[in-house]
Amino acid sequence: SRSINLAVIPGDGIGQEVVAEGLKVLSAVLPQDVKLETKDYDFGATRYHATGETLTDADLDALKQHDAILLGAIGDPSVPSGVLERGFLLKLRFAFDHHVNLRPSKLLPGVATPLAGEPQIDFVVVREGTEGPYTGNGGTIRKGTEHEVATEVSVNTAFGVERVVRDAFARAQARPRKKLALIHKNNVLTFAGHLWTDVFNKVAAEFPDVTTEYMHVDAATIYLVTQPERFDVIVTDNLFGDIITDLAAAVSGGIGVAASGNINPSGEFPSMFEPVHGSAPDIAGQGKADPTATVLSVALLLRHLGYEAEAARIDEAVSVDLAERTGKPARSTSEIGDALAVRVAG
Amino acid sequence: SRSINLAVIPGDGIGQEVVAEGLKVLSAVLPQDVKLETKDYDFGATRYHATGETLTDADLDALKQHDAILLGAIGDPSVPSGVLERGFLLKLRFAFDHHVNLRPSKLLPGVATPLAGEPQIDFVVVREGTEGPYTGNGGTIRKGTEHEVATEVSVNTAFGVERVVRDAFARAQARPRKKLALIHKNNVLTFAGHLWTDVFNKVAAEFPDVTTEYMHVDAATIYLVTQPERFDVIVTDNLFGDIITDLAAAVSGGIGVAASGNINPSGEFPSMFEPVHGSAPDIAGQGKADPTATVLSVALLLRHLGYEAEAARIDEAVSVDLAERTGKPARSTSEIGDALAVRVAG
Ligand SMILES: CC(C)[C@H](C(=O)O)[C@@H](O)C(=O)O
Ligand SMILES: CC(C)[C@H](C(=O)O)[C@@H](O)C(=O)O
Repeated sequence: SRSINLAVIPGDGIGQEVVAEGLKVLSAVLPQDVKLETKDYDFGATRYHATGETLTDADLDALKQHDAILLGAIGDPSVPSGVLERGFLLKLRFAFDHHVNLRPSKLLPGVATPLAGEPQIDFVVVREGTEGPYTGNGGTIRKGTEHEVATEVSVNTAFGVERVVRDAFARAQARPRKKLALIHKNNVLTFAGHLWTDVFNKVAAEFPDVTTEYMHVDAATIYLVTQPERFDVIVTDNLFGDIITDLAAAVSGGIGVAASGNINPSGEFPSMFEPVHGSAPDIAGQGKADPTATVLSVALLLRHLGYEAEAARIDEAVSVDLAERTGKPARSTSEIGDALAVRVAG
Repeated sequence: SRSINLAVIPGDGIGQEVVAEGLKVLSAVLPQDVKLETKDYDFGATRYHATGETLTDADLDALKQHDAILLGAIGDPSVPSGVLERGFLLKLRFAFDHHVNLRPSKLLPGVATPLAGEPQIDFVVVREGTEGPYTGNGGTIRKGTEHEVATEVSVNTAFGVERVVRDAFARAQARPRKKLALIHKNNVLTFAGHLWTDVFNKVAAEFPDVTTEYMHVDAATIYLVTQPERFDVIVTDNLFGDIITDLAAAVSGGIGVAASGNINPSGEFPSMFEPVHGSAPDIAGQGKADPTATVLSVALLLRHLGYEAEAARIDEAVSVDLAERTGKPARSTSEIGDALAVRVAG
């Protein structure tokens, strides 16, 4: 019989609330014969304040035992900027080699967008997750003096670029439009840019049915607001991916519905799924957070584990739920979760 | 008697056409007693193909003699990506220490925006121009092999950050709303991010009447499309500035109206003014390019040289011209230039 052994990291702020709804929908959608086991982990600001720890080797060993990880949100204003990001979120992505950071953007019917007209938005960004300016390479000299110099080193390897580019080509090939855009800034960041461009062109030769284009990241932000329908699959580096996926989320319904997967395609380590939004401490504990992004992250998780039909049922339930929101009073976090759980079970 | 000794770099593609209109409006707006001298320089793709040169020491010596530089556009598909960008545009910015890259975004009445509703957009981005990931530091090893490693080093100095932050505070203080936002990614790029944040907070103490906020660059792209009215002055690093100013241009009327100044505030070297758009080779030579961004760059140039009244006349003329466009047939590049020249003279 089948089973899913899930690590659950509710985290900070609204994390707890949205993860509860994600799990509710997950339980509802899974067939009877699939045994779901979950284990909660207390990472985040509270543990950091209590113990000074963000993510230990023992934690990593424990997480490794799971099939996948569901995360709510990590981050709190009481913790200095960077401590939990570098000490937990990025440490985990690097430790588990989550090199494919998958971020779909789809503007669903009835969902509000800040863009005028009725843009057709349905693309997915494949963001590299373990290299680029995110490696933490760099440093500071003469800190706090007028002679301080601080550097950040973007590290890009043929190995790292090729595997994510290849993953993106495969995803593009599997979609009806079969289009892939490389986004970089190869006219300025010429060392990294040429590596990305050369690898992209080399791999392209193996996917002759995929239509490709190259775009500078600055130009890409223009197209994301003026012609978002132009995009099908995008592959890009870690930092550019961070920036354009927030913009992509904004134009396709907001971060309330933006899901993401931090994927290790080889399966050597468990992949992690999380809403793109943060911990939103201003609305935490009030039942106001929209759990939709977490529920959609559960769909990505199921798809990753091979439960395609269940993932599709969640996507469909969310789509119907969003379409029916217009004109109705706002619901609480758990009311939305309940409604989605009923729909996916039905 | 007063005089302006201007270096003119028409450059590639539509550069020639838009610069001609910029000069037309400049001549029309200047009072009789101001002697305008211009000298054309042939930088760009044509010269590169003919001589292999992009910008020589002799060129820099010649440009140095001018009061300011007006540039159309540099770049052509016939030249490999990066050659003219690094070899001309960035070389000039670095050689003349253009550390204040000024990019105003104002949505003028009657101008189309991709955003829904009627957003109020009126802010200016102060982008650092001589540091960050733009320094060209970095390199490649094992090029072309499966073991290639390419690095890009973002270099940030207290000296470089403080002068641009100080400039931005002064600009914010001079505006009615007196708001300044620092945009960075200090939770991930912790070395550079902490330097920027520390310097920003230190300088803030000297400008107690300026309201400040900090925002991660990814979140900033969301606000730029959902709450652009939130921004007054933004200060940010070279790469983040490149990205968000293209997005800012897109939401506030498009790159057809986005002007920029590459400013050396000390006056040690001439400052350079240019439209944000590129050379647009697809429409070059057809009289289709909108010269408005170049004309607005001329206004920035005049303001920089102390001709505030004339700069304001150009801004006003552009504002009226844009408001009257709706429903009228498209005009050619020179028709728009003629109309603006008449207005500023009148
Ligand atoms: C919180 C931060 C480390 C993270 C990132 O920059 O990757 C976030 O912005 C994201 O996009 O997942
Ligand atoms: C052409 C390129 C070098 C330049 C930059 O990245 O600064 C351009 O995008 C700009 O914004 O002026």
